[in-house]
Amino acid sequence: MAKYIEKIQEFLRHEHVDALLLRSKTMKKYLDTMTGSGCQVLITLNSGYLLLDGRYLEEARQKEKQLEIICTDDIKGKVVEILASNAIDTLALENDQTSVKLYQYYQKEIKNIRLFDEEIGMLRIIKEEEEIQKIQKAVDITDEIFQQVRSHLHLGMTEYEISALLHYYAIKNGAQQMSFDTIVTSGPRTALPHGRPTDRKLQLHDPVMLDFGIQLNNYQSDMTRMVFMESPTEKMVEIYETVLKAQTTALEAIAAGKVASSIDAVARAIITEAGYGEYFDHGLGHGIGIGDGNEMPYLNKKSSTILQNNMLMSCEPGIYVPGIGGVRIEDDVLICDGKGVALNKTPKDLYIVKEK
Amino acid sequence: MAKYIEKIQEFLRHEHVDALLLRSKTMKKYLDTMTGSGCQVLITLNSGYLLLDGRYLEEARQKEKQLEIICTDDIKGKVVEILASNAIDTLALENDQTSVKLYQYYQKEIKNIRLFDEEIGMLRIIKEEEEIQKIQKAVDITDEIFQQVRSHLHLGMTEYEISALLHYYAIKNGAQQMSFDTIVTSGPRTALPHGRPTDRKLQLHDPVMLDFGIQLNNYQSDMTRMVFMESPTEKMVEIYETVLKAQTTALEAIAAGKVASSIDAVARAIITEAGYGEYFDHGLGHGIGIGDGNEMPYLNKKSSTILQNNMLMSCEPGIYVPGIGGVRIEDDVLICDGKGVALNKTPKDLYIVKEK
Repeated sequence: MAKYIEKIQEFLRHEHVDALLLRSKTMKKYLDTMTGSGCQVLITLNSGYLLLDGRYLEEARQKEKQLEIICTDDIKGKVVEILASNAIDTLALENDQTSVKLYQYYQKEIKNIRLFDEEIGMLRIIKEEEEIQKIQKAVDITDEIFQQVRSHLHLGMTEYEISALLHYYAIKNGAQQMSFDTIVTSGPRTALPHGRPTDRKLQLHDPVMLDFGIQLNNYQSDMTRMVFMESPTEKMVEIYETVLKAQTTALEAIAAGKVASSIDAVARAIITEAGYGEYFDHGLGHGIGIGDGNEMPYLNKKSSTILQNNMLMSCEPGIYVPGIGGVRIEDDVLICDGKGVALNKTPKDLYIVKEK
Repeated sequence: MAKYIEKIQEFLRHEHVDALLLRSKTMKKYLDTMTGSGCQVLITLNSGYLLLDGRYLEEARQKEKQLEIICTDDIKGKVVEILASNAIDTLALENDQTSVKLYQYYQKEIKNIRLFDEEIGMLRIIKEEEEIQKIQKAVDITDEIFQQVRSHLHLGMTEYEISALLHYYAIKNGAQQMSFDTIVTSGPRTALPHGRPTDRKLQLHDPVMLDFGIQLNNYQSDMTRMVFMESPTEKMVEIYETVLKAQTTALEAIAAGKVASSIDAVARAIITEAGYGEYFDHGLGHGIGIGDGNEMPYLNKKSSTILQNNMLMSCEPGIYVPGIGGVRIEDDVLICDGKGVALNKTPKDLYIVKEK
């Protein structure tokens, strides 16, 4: 994992900062170290430290091979001490991980304090080969889970049960956890873009939306597929075909050198042209990696990121018509040899569950 | 839910603060409102507002009955506007939810900024009757889940499978999610106080630790039980009996009027006397409610909280001997009519799984 420490050190040199304190789970996962709330990482230009309280020491000794482990009851005091003894007078902090009181503490003790926001996300935007392999593995298992759960679907089954099966197969396959709150909706509830499961039972003609992902070896997957119970209504078929066309066309448009907002525009144009523009009220996609709901690049109207090889993102257009229902179709897409490639193998044609 | 808004307003009057901005999931759950990252709550002495961006509007209209819904692309600007139009010049923020940049923004716009830390937790420390009922329901389901999963245990089963079953029954029963990362360890791995499941298979004589909880209607449960495969070793029986004595004695010691640290001391004395003092390296318990890993009262060496009726806390002593194994036993305990009462019904005597 020394590679990732070096990436951070290179970034620090570029930013003219001598040290960076990491408190976020995301960055602790990035360094494949302990993620508990009592663990923090300090990276200087020449060293890396894992600071923790006694509760974590035993596990850290087994797990951590790169960072120097420092056990202390006063992490912030120890950070100040390490910087002082290395004659370092500039410390960068993660803005969203630093409470005001903590900031005020460091401000008193250290000469220059910097706050990083998006810069930290940019560190992770281009994936290493081994990161891509980890994500591909998470996606492969996600495909399998979907297949397994789909084979259990039947009329009268509750959304809770479907969600329970997704969790069961995920954890059984070694997922650390779901990568976000699992979305399972059915019937008109599919019009809620992020609806949580309920005790609603599957009915004839229902669309069913399954949007879930797993976290495996710290890396995440994210996939959405729809199924229909016995037969969909004509209206839902029209919506489905529109979303599918938007999704596949946008996916093909993903390419190195393009600006991220232009991909969002491709999907949005197709949906708008079909008359559903007002019902697609979220961005087309977001980065896939470690970041919990906060990974770059974003594919939306405002995103000015220039896409590059080894970036990884979701492509997930949707249409949500209140009272009727909604459709979203989502793949995880890697830019490889200049072009977007879906990592998911689960087919996207309209799938009908037939009673046995 | 108006009751909880009023509790906050009463607290604001007591603190001489005119308005409080809530960004934490915990406090949004406390108000039973939308918890998404794009939703914030502003409470003034006379009003309550739910500020959100367009993505959440549809769901908020269905769900929110007490707070005034305000849809905006610029929440922080809107907060400033509402305060100005009500001639309010003091705003309180949650310290751990306020990034430095956000703090600096409000500091420029509003005359007096206050930061709340533990004060916010104190708001929730005495539970209302309906909160207790919700927690009791979560605990009841936790008991059931444990029973169901225990009936599936057999030699050769992986820790992953056990964890998968816990998740399955939890979500099937309507849990929103697990209340924390599920702990399943077996054999010598039980010496890790917070070990995550692996593909290790259950072996003869293994101790197995299951520590899990669910989140149901926003309220959490938390329980730890041990089982032994076929038969435990003598050493593990000794450790088990010691922890059990510490747990039941501490539970009986929980009472209104006592200082929290004295309960921790009761458990610690028993474990120390048995010669295992150095292997009990965490506090005895923590509050149970909504707070994600951050609920009062704490039962530990330092906690000076005076226990009162309708406080709810875990009681979970443990002994963890590296290379040998560990034991923890945990109930959720309510103080009712002055005395601690375990909400869990799952028995605590040493349980042996026999092969069928």
